[in-house]
Amino acid sequence: MTLGIKMAEKTAEKAVDITPIQQFLYCETPKAWLEYAVKNLEILLIDHAHCEKKAAATAVKLMFRYPERIDLLKKLSQLIREEVLHFEQVLEFIEQQGIKYRAIKPSRYAAGLHQYVQKDEPQRFIDSLLIGGIIEARSCERFHALVPYLKDLYPELAKYYRFLLKSESRHFMDYIDLAKQYSEGDITHRLDFFLRKEKELIETDDPLFRFHSGIPVN
Amino acid sequence: MTLGIKMAEKTAEKAVDITPIQQFLYCETPKAWLEYAVKNLEILLIDHAHCEKKAAATAVKLMFRYPERIDLLKKLSQLIREEVLHFEQVLEFIEQQGIKYRAIKPSRYAAGLHQYVQKDEPQRFIDSLLIGGIIEARSCERFHALVPYLKDLYPELAKYYRFLLKSESRHFMDYIDLAKQYSEGDITHRLDFFLRKEKELIETDDPLFRFHSGIPVN
Repeated sequence: MTLGIKMAEKTAEKAVDITPIQQFLYCETPKAWLEYAVKNLEILLIDHAHCEKKAAATAVKLMFRYPERIDLLKKLSQLIREEVLHFEQVLEFIEQQGIKYRAIKPSRYAAGLHQYVQKDEPQRFIDSLLIGGIIEARSCERFHALVPYLKDLYPELAKYYRFLLKSESRHFMDYIDLAKQYSEGDITHRLDFFLRKEKELIETDDPLFRFHSGIPVN
Repeated sequence: MTLGIKMAEKTAEKAVDITPIQQFLYCETPKAWLEYAVKNLEILLIDHAHCEKKAAATAVKLMFRYPERIDLLKKLSQLIREEVLHFEQVLEFIEQQGIKYRAIKPSRYAAGLHQYVQKDEPQRFIDSLLIGGIIEARSCERFHALVPYLKDLYPELAKYYRFLLKSESRHFMDYIDLAKQYSEGDITHRLDFFLRKEKELIETDDPLFRFHSGIPVN
């Protein structure tokens, strides 16, 4: 993970303040998930790679669905470049660990949020942006929470996750800012709705352990 | 187009040899298209931006369809990053020219090739890679052919197109190499089939002028 590490070293001095993200989300990652994650690094890493790829794909989809919103196009294309780079970096790390990268079933998390997206525009668009922001915020919170659990056993990965906070927190802000910019009304109520759903997905039992899963049950 | 130009200046000394690409394709861009293009820069640029976005989307689709082919994933993710960066650069240039970016109907070109993709695997995969390579090759050939037509009126764009040759020619090779690597048999016959179809699309009359269109008729 040469690239990731180089960048991590560069930005190591400037720690990212994730307080706004912790305040934005309605709950923190449960300790049970963190303890399970550090013992199941293979699945964590493979699913992390999938999440980066999926984040890029979701942004590409939005670029095609709303092809004339210039600010959206600009922010999403930068986001795509970063997510895809992270995908490559995580893939490299997976290989270095001797782990075989493979396709795995996704968690219930993203689908569990997207099921509430309204079918009609313009709400469909705003809902998609809000969910994008929430997922980025959770990723950021989770990278931060994982660092103390990883730093002794996997110092390189801990460093990389600390580095990732920076871009993920920017992506979170980008999505929320875009939702505010393009929404005709106040987004507070709708955001509250999705944040409550997200809290449920994080704090309830989840049979499938993944990067964004709930409390592991086995 | 600050970024594009900076890079263009860096690579200006090393001209890319596009002879292999000209030899690969079965025809060169007709003069009639080039003369029309330079007089219809607005459509050319808007469609060029669309093509970059589309190229990224196609690569993302392949990453999801074939999620366990590591070499494919690595090459495609680098390609996506580059295509998306080009999209941003072209968008910036469009804005600098005072052109309003908008969604326009795509040309017959890509669909005209994709209609022949076999429905069954593994041929579907190989066909997709071959078409990817051919489209990249044509883009490269077209950028190169446009330079002398653009250099007096739009020197900055001519410089940028000269710069783009480099990455597009790499993408062409990547796609063809991947097709060779993953194909169980010889790709020559199938490649010949698509190259003949491509020549037809380029050399026949085309009512809709676009970056990859045939001979303009109006």
